[in-house]
Amino acid sequence: CATGSAAVRQGIRAIDANAARIVLVVGAEQMTTTSGPEIGKNLLKASYLPEEGDTPAGFAGVFGQIAQAYFQRYGDQSDALAMIAAKNHRNGVDNPYAQMRKDFGYEFCRHESEKNPFVAGPLKRTDCSLVSDGAAALVLADTATALKMRRAVAFRANEHVQDFLPMSKRDILAFEGCEQAWNQALNKAGVTLDDLSFVETHDCFTIAELIEYEAMGLAKPGEGAKLALDGETAKDGRLPVNPSGGLKAKGHPIGATGVSMHVLSAMQLVGEAGGIQVPGAKLGGIFNMGGAAVANYVSILDRIR
Amino acid sequence: CATGSAAVRQGIRAIDANAARIVLVVGAEQMTTTSGPEIGKNLLKASYLPEEGDTPAGFAGVFGQIAQAYFQRYGDQSDALAMIAAKNHRNGVDNPYAQMRKDFGYEFCRHESEKNPFVAGPLKRTDCSLVSDGAAALVLADTATALKMRRAVAFRANEHVQDFLPMSKRDILAFEGCEQAWNQALNKAGVTLDDLSFVETHDCFTIAELIEYEAMGLAKPGEGAKLALDGETAKDGRLPVNPSGGLKAKGHPIGATGVSMHVLSAMQLVGEAGGIQVPGAKLGGIFNMGGAAVANYVSILDRIR
Repeated sequence: CATGSAAVRQGIRAIDANAARIVLVVGAEQMTTTSGPEIGKNLLKASYLPEEGDTPAGFAGVFGQIAQAYFQRYGDQSDALAMIAAKNHRNGVDNPYAQMRKDFGYEFCRHESEKNPFVAGPLKRTDCSLVSDGAAALVLADTATALKMRRAVAFRANEHVQDFLPMSKRDILAFEGCEQAWNQALNKAGVTLDDLSFVETHDCFTIAELIEYEAMGLAKPGEGAKLALDGETAKDGRLPVNPSGGLKAKGHPIGATGVSMHVLSAMQLVGEAGGIQVPGAKLGGIFNMGGAAVANYVSILDRIR
Repeated sequence: CATGSAAVRQGIRAIDANAARIVLVVGAEQMTTTSGPEIGKNLLKASYLPEEGDTPAGFAGVFGQIAQAYFQRYGDQSDALAMIAAKNHRNGVDNPYAQMRKDFGYEFCRHESEKNPFVAGPLKRTDCSLVSDGAAALVLADTATALKMRRAVAFRANEHVQDFLPMSKRDILAFEGCEQAWNQALNKAGVTLDDLSFVETHDCFTIAELIEYEAMGLAKPGEGAKLALDGETAKDGRLPVNPSGGLKAKGHPIGATGVSMHVLSAMQLVGEAGGIQVPGAKLGGIFNMGGAAVANYVSILDRIR
């Protein structure tokens, strides 16, 4: 799920190693031609199969368990999850690259219905990202070359933190790899969350976005819900999160997602994001993960030209 | 099949990019717990499935077709293939890390028998590498650090050439990616094949080693057989090829193979290769490939301390 960001990172490294001056990074995935059960089986391979391989409902089941555990520790967060789903769907309406451009609204996302059944644990269909076909590409260049272009966006930071694969080896509600990647990236960039104009974060499930609020340091553990409920992460909030609509609305074509996050963030920074533009965006943060916070990639992007 | 070399290359790049000073590269694979048909299906994924996905006998079938085509263009090479198989099995006897340490001899490899049946096209069981469990690891370091160690081996070259995946888009008997990778590597290192003390090459099937003789420039197209028949690539020949026993004898644990080739070559260069030692080895060449010459990696190693 983070292979797109892994590819971006390898491209950066090739340039840093003077092995390349310009790198084309492409992420692509075709999922809709595969049957539902097989998709579930394939996605579950992002888990530690000896312990998690039998999870009912596949990878959604893994996050269903995470949501369940979160609710047990911090109380029912169904309101906040519905707010996140509704926010991202609302944002996605304005994204011409989104797979689903429909404003479902909070009420629809909040309540179980025939069209919004429970999928795994407390997660309903509107809490899950989509099965998608998609592709994204971007061009990386060394700084001198980039500065000759009409516009250029730089990596103020690009960090990768790899956590243990088995969930039994970590506090699965802490997303510690995500936290560490954000800390490293903010340090490297010499900025704080307050300096960011927006964040694109990995909302494969709404519970993931909620926990990521806490892991990135936007809220204390167990208090992420308040941000969602108060609209602080809405497009006109204190820190817009997933102005693109996130994986929730734009879809989650596995290998393309990380690349797409970088592309859409760069578009924000050069002021060419169209309907999803965050006014005056200056600095953007990206978090893309593989598995349940196993492979953690954070980039901080800055317009330099 | 070349992911081990891809990992080595990423490690080198991390050091070149000043992102790391010391890198541990690990390749590991467990294959023997998977059923035969499933292994075949998994390995075939190294092919272009829309065109090659129905190949009978899986990935062996792909190389069976290559052998068939080679025989049609250049005549029957069963003698040479048996010489290659016998040579590598002979070499493997002296390799304590080899999976199969048995000197089958030329006659056994040459003739069909109950224990050596045809597997795909003209390829018999002794023409195919093994289903293996295995692992290999090595430590990379920047030059300054390496020179502080008791012994050190340097990359005079490390090249990667990626060819088209579909066999229909290339002359499959030419292994052009292999040829280009060797050319680039020899140029980069400023040496010729005559300077090499030995080569470890990717003999997933004996026909592959035969074609690689030609692709690396050791023989003209269609004339690789002569090298094998004359013993020029035997351990005491002009250029020992696969003194370790190759994939044929040491096994082919997919993700480990490329790393293992580098480890065994480094052992040769520091004179610690035990029974498989090539006397006075000074410069070693490695060719590891993924698919049928799709991902092509060549390294040239040199002892610097």
